[in-house]
Amino acid sequence: MNIQDYIRDISDFPKPGILFKDITPLLANHKALVSCADQLVGLCPDGVKIDKVIGIEARGFIIGSMIAERLQAGFIPVRKKGKLPYDVKSKSYGLEYGEDTLEIHIDAIKAGEHVLIHDDVLATGGTAKAVCDLVKELGGVVVQCNFIMELEFLNGKDKLDVPRSALLKY
Amino acid sequence: MNIQDYIRDISDFPKPGILFKDITPLLANHKALVSCADQLVGLCPDGVKIDKVIGIEARGFIIGSMIAERLQAGFIPVRKKGKLPYDVKSKSYGLEYGEDTLEIHIDAIKAGEHVLIHDDVLATGGTAKAVCDLVKELGGVVVQCNFIMELEFLNGKDKLDVPRSALLKY
Repeated sequence: MNIQDYIRDISDFPKPGILFKDITPLLANHKALVSCADQLVGLCPDGVKIDKVIGIEARGFIIGSMIAERLQAGFIPVRKKGKLPYDVKSKSYGLEYGEDTLEIHIDAIKAGEHVLIHDDVLATGGTAKAVCDLVKELGGVVVQCNFIMELEFLNGKDKLDVPRSALLKY
Repeated sequence: MNIQDYIRDISDFPKPGILFKDITPLLANHKALVSCADQLVGLCPDGVKIDKVIGIEARGFIIGSMIAERLQAGFIPVRKKGKLPYDVKSKSYGLEYGEDTLEIHIDAIKAGEHVLIHDDVLATGGTAKAVCDLVKELGGVVVQCNFIMELEFLNGKDKLDVPRSALLKY
């Protein structure tokens, strides 16, 4: 199944000049939703037991939990600042304008655990890099960052020193 | 499996005097995560084909997609204002202090479709009521609102005129 058929282009979102890739038609179609999760798991490295799948707030939560189910792993939410109720590790990272902060619970990952990080899009890579750093600070091992799509022209791969994969590349 | 064992109480979050029910230990445990989704589907009404499962941003996204997979339904995100890229219907609702706005894509639900709404917690019911209203405005039929837990002392049920269910009640 070609999930690209279920991605909708939206002009000028979130601001003028940006062509946004909207995954909601994919999510709304049951077969496309399931196929997307299946295909993402198909890109995961063979022979490595994944202990935890991280989904990055908020779109990364949707398919992230489905990947965790398939890999027989637990699911860990990484959230924006102030959203997680227990003790957290925080990481701030630069955006085009200003900065953002992501947080993970300090007990989310145990030392030595194998972690897969999922988000819908790899853009500039700042978000994924921050999450990789959080996992490493907790002693976890990032086995892969996986994405529904990679916006190659933004060179996010240059920020990541771990394996990555994406179903679609633009 | 008693998923209550995987809910953690956090005092004074998000503000003093609130005892927050933290579901992240449940999500992090693979068996509890899967059992929670299975049990929620077990509470869905028999004999009604669900076309779409709505997950409410952000925690409702996590188990919502797993419920959609089990019910062979599509998944629809309802999001905070300004987050959805396409044309939306919006609904504002009162909070204890101020108000909040939720949005759904105008093409998310077709007239006559059967919709299940999922969120992690039923508290005062304002959020769930707003989502019910959005579904009705799009011509959909809310078959059930389902929650991991209901905080009964907040009387959220009084705001809802559709069937509801919850795995845990406090």
